[in-house]
Amino acid sequence: MKNHDNEFMREAIRLSVENIGNNGGPFGAVIVKDNAIIARGTNRVTSSIDPTAHAEIVAIREAATKLNNFDLSGCAIYTSCEPCPMCLSAIYWARIDRVFYGNTKDDAKKIGFDDSFIYDEIKLPIEKRTITTTQLLRDEAIEGFRKWEELEDKTEY
Amino acid sequence: MKNHDNEFMREAIRLSVENIGNNGGPFGAVIVKDNAIIARGTNRVTSSIDPTAHAEIVAIREAATKLNNFDLSGCAIYTSCEPCPMCLSAIYWARIDRVFYGNTKDDAKKIGFDDSFIYDEIKLPIEKRTITTTQLLRDEAIEGFRKWEELEDKTEY
Repeated sequence: MKNHDNEFMREAIRLSVENIGNNGGPFGAVIVKDNAIIARGTNRVTSSIDPTAHAEIVAIREAATKLNNFDLSGCAIYTSCEPCPMCLSAIYWARIDRVFYGNTKDDAKKIGFDDSFIYDEIKLPIEKRTITTTQLLRDEAIEGFRKWEELEDKTEY
Repeated sequence: MKNHDNEFMREAIRLSVENIGNNGGPFGAVIVKDNAIIARGTNRVTSSIDPTAHAEIVAIREAATKLNNFDLSGCAIYTSCEPCPMCLSAIYWARIDRVFYGNTKDDAKKIGFDDSFIYDEIKLPIEKRTITTTQLLRDEAIEGFRKWEELEDKTEY
């Protein structure tokens, strides 16, 4: 298994390097199921004009399409860099089993990609975060949740 | 401004309720710039088969396309429910200025959408998380970062 792991990580690294030549950041990821790569992703934030298009998110979306399933249990992700909090959360939502990473978030910080600020903010209670966050109309918002609860034939996830 | 805020939140709530009838979870979001809604999102995880398609992510992607800019500074997001860590991180990456939310994450937990597990996991050091995470081939991965550093004509973000 060790050699396979290296092989999959090398493909993620190859994508990260290739992406620099394609007007993207130096990040690549692959998703593996049953010892085969089923999806590839690179950072497309600037090229796709999409702030959510990190390599892992792109790979997760492709893997879900490929498997026709939003649940990626049984899959592993190999990413050229330690996931940011957005990507790590997406990995949990997708129920991916294992994460392999190359560079650390400190390596990323050194070349100008600093997600430690976001890691710090997420840990804080709402009122202490730098982004102003306000609750509004909760009494009206809860109606949607009530209707969901009452629904009998729904796809839970 | 207060009335405008309520109006925008009501649209997010309306989307959350409407989405239940469209085979989606009870979540809606709108992004506002210069006092006008520029993007709408609903939860499309099951309907789009995309584990990342939370209402906020969908709205952020649409807003970036609409403005032709991955930087959404000057925008506010109104979401029918407190953002999960994935969406909150995406809000930071997109540089959105303000967040308004209706339901709390505890309200969401009560109807089966529990993101507190992810909030807890993110706070932990890698080796204490439930998802097995392994560093591999950092010496090779760092090459991509070196190439990025050496690049002179790049779009930083």
